[in-house]
Amino acid sequence: MRVPSKCRTCGEPAIIDLPRHNAKFCAEHFQELCRRQVVKAIDQFSMLTPADRILVAVSGGKDSLAVWDLLIELGYQADGLYIGLGIGDYSDVSGDYARAFAQERGLHLIEVSLRSEYGYDIPTAARATRRVPCSACGLSKRHLFDKAAIEGGYTVLVTGHNLDDEAAVLLGNTLRWDIDYLSRQLPVLEARGGFPKKVKPLVRLTERETAAWCVVRGIDYLVDECPMAAGNKHLGYKDTLNSMEAVSPGSKAAFYLNFIDKMAPILASHFQEERDALGTCGRCGAPAAGEICAFCRLVETASAHEPVPVELVMKGRR
Amino acid sequence: MRVPSKCRTCGEPAIIDLPRHNAKFCAEHFQELCRRQVVKAIDQFSMLTPADRILVAVSGGKDSLAVWDLLIELGYQADGLYIGLGIGDYSDVSGDYARAFAQERGLHLIEVSLRSEYGYDIPTAARATRRVPCSACGLSKRHLFDKAAIEGGYTVLVTGHNLDDEAAVLLGNTLRWDIDYLSRQLPVLEARGGFPKKVKPLVRLTERETAAWCVVRGIDYLVDECPMAAGNKHLGYKDTLNSMEAVSPGSKAAFYLNFIDKMAPILASHFQEERDALGTCGRCGAPAAGEICAFCRLVETASAHEPVPVELVMKGRR
Repeated sequence: MRVPSKCRTCGEPAIIDLPRHNAKFCAEHFQELCRRQVVKAIDQFSMLTPADRILVAVSGGKDSLAVWDLLIELGYQADGLYIGLGIGDYSDVSGDYARAFAQERGLHLIEVSLRSEYGYDIPTAARATRRVPCSACGLSKRHLFDKAAIEGGYTVLVTGHNLDDEAAVLLGNTLRWDIDYLSRQLPVLEARGGFPKKVKPLVRLTERETAAWCVVRGIDYLVDECPMAAGNKHLGYKDTLNSMEAVSPGSKAAFYLNFIDKMAPILASHFQEERDALGTCGRCGAPAAGEICAFCRLVETASAHEPVPVELVMKGRR
Repeated sequence: MRVPSKCRTCGEPAIIDLPRHNAKFCAEHFQELCRRQVVKAIDQFSMLTPADRILVAVSGGKDSLAVWDLLIELGYQADGLYIGLGIGDYSDVSGDYARAFAQERGLHLIEVSLRSEYGYDIPTAARATRRVPCSACGLSKRHLFDKAAIEGGYTVLVTGHNLDDEAAVLLGNTLRWDIDYLSRQLPVLEARGGFPKKVKPLVRLTERETAAWCVVRGIDYLVDECPMAAGNKHLGYKDTLNSMEAVSPGSKAAFYLNFIDKMAPILASHFQEERDALGTCGRCGAPAAGEICAFCRLVETASAHEPVPVELVMKGRR
C-alpha cells in the first residue's frame, strides 16, 4: 500500500515531492518554500534592497518568468528585458510568452531585436564566426543586458540562473580547475567599471522547482530547450549531476552551496588583484579589453554575413 | 573499412588503444609509455631516489603488483607488504597472487595476518563496529603499513593508487568541498611525527593501463573487486568519471592533474598550519589523537566479537 502523499506543513494532499528536502508539499506551502529560498539567497548574499531599480533578463522560459514573478510578489520594483535572438520559431514563441506575462501583470518589458537593431541573429552569428551558437548568444546577451541596465539607470541586473545551471557551470569549471572562472562564480557580482551589479536570486531553487512554481502560479512559459543548445557540454554536466542527485538527494545543492560557503572565500583572497583594467570600446563605449569590444566585433562579422536559417545551422552540426 | 591499428611509435600492430593519448601502441611501446609516465610522476613530485628503501603495499591486485614490478624494473630497491584481511576466499586468493609474484622474482614479501596477529578480520570488524567494511579496512591497512615501514627502517611507503582511484577520491571530496581532505590529497605525503613518507607512483596511469601492464608483462593478479566494496560511493564516482571520459577522452586525467597543478598550491598555502599535534598511543606507541589510537580501539572492539564470515556481512547489507 502506498503511503498517501501529504504536505509536510499542513497535512493536505501534496502536489510535489522534494527528496532533497525529504518532504512533500501542497501548492500553497510549496510556494512558501520557494519564496523562503529566494529571500534566503537575497539576504545571504545582499543581492537586493527595496530601493533597487531592477532589470530582469527575460527569455520567456520558466526561470526568468519565475524570478520576475517572485521579485514582484516580494515587493521589488522590476522591469523586464527581452532580447529577440532570431532563433527561428523558438524565438518567436519565447517572445510571445514574455510579452503575455508582462501584459497580464501590467509590467514593463523592454525589447531589443538583434536582427532589426544590429543586423544579425544567432544562427547567422554562429555560421559567420564558425563557433558554437551558445558562444555568440552568450556574448550578445551579456553585452545587451549590461548596456540596457546601465543606460536605463537600473541598479541591479537579475538573471534567472537556477541551482542546476550554477551547479553545472561549477562542475565544468571544476573538472578543468579553471581557477579564474571558479573565483568569479558567485551569485552576486558587484558593479565595476561600466558593468552593472548582477545577481542570481534563484540559486537555491532547482529547475524542477522553478518549473513547478510556474505551473502552480499559472504562468505559461516556453517549455522547449533552445534547439541550438542540444548536445552542449552544459547539458551533459546537468545530466551527470542529476544522476548523482538520484542516488544521493541533496548532493547537487551541497556541491554548489558548499562551494560558495567554503571554497569561494579561499579563491577570493587569492584572486582579488585587479584582473580587468579594461579600456573603453571605440565604437560603443562599453568596457573593452582591446580597441573594439567583442560585441562590436561580432556585430561586424555577423551583420556582413547573409542570413542563415536556424535549420541550416542545426543540419550542419549533425 | 576499418583503419588497421598500428603502434604510434613503430607502426607494428597495436595491442591497445589509448584515446586520451589519441594513440595506439604495441606491447613494447605501451610499456615504454607506462614507464615514462611513472618516471614523470616520480620526478615531478620528488617521490623516490635510488637510495630509498621502499616498502610497497601489496594486495595481489593489478595496481600493487604493477607498481612493484615497475619500481624493480626502474632499478629501485623495494620489498612488499601483504596484509591478510580475512575477507573469505577473496583474501586467500589475493595472498596467493602476491606470494607467487614475489617468489617468481626473488623479491621479499612481508606478511601480516589480521586474524592471527590481531584476533580479528574485516568482516568481523565491520559487524562489530556497525560501519561499512571499507572503513575498518582502510584504518587497519593504514596503521599496519605505517607501522611496518617505520619498524622496518623503510624510507618510503609506496601504494598502487592509480589515476582512477585518485580522481574518484578527488571527485568525492570536491562534491562536498571538503577543504581539509582536498588540501591533503597529494601524490606525496612527506614523513611527519611517526608517519612514513608515502607516495603514489601510478597517479599518471589509469586502471585500464595498469591492468594492461600486468597482461603484457605476464603478471597474474586477482581480477575480482573486493566483494565488500560493491556499491560503495567510490565505485560510483569512478563510473561518473568514466562516463565523462567516454564523451571527452582525457577529461579524467585533466581533472586530477590540473587539481594537483593549479588548486593544490592554493590550498597548501591556506592550510599549512599544524593541524595534527598528535600524541602517542598508550598501547602501541603510534601517533594518536587521544590516549589510545583508532587502530587499537578497533582491535579491542573487533577481537572481542565472535568471528563473522564475509557472506553473512554481505547478506546483511542487501
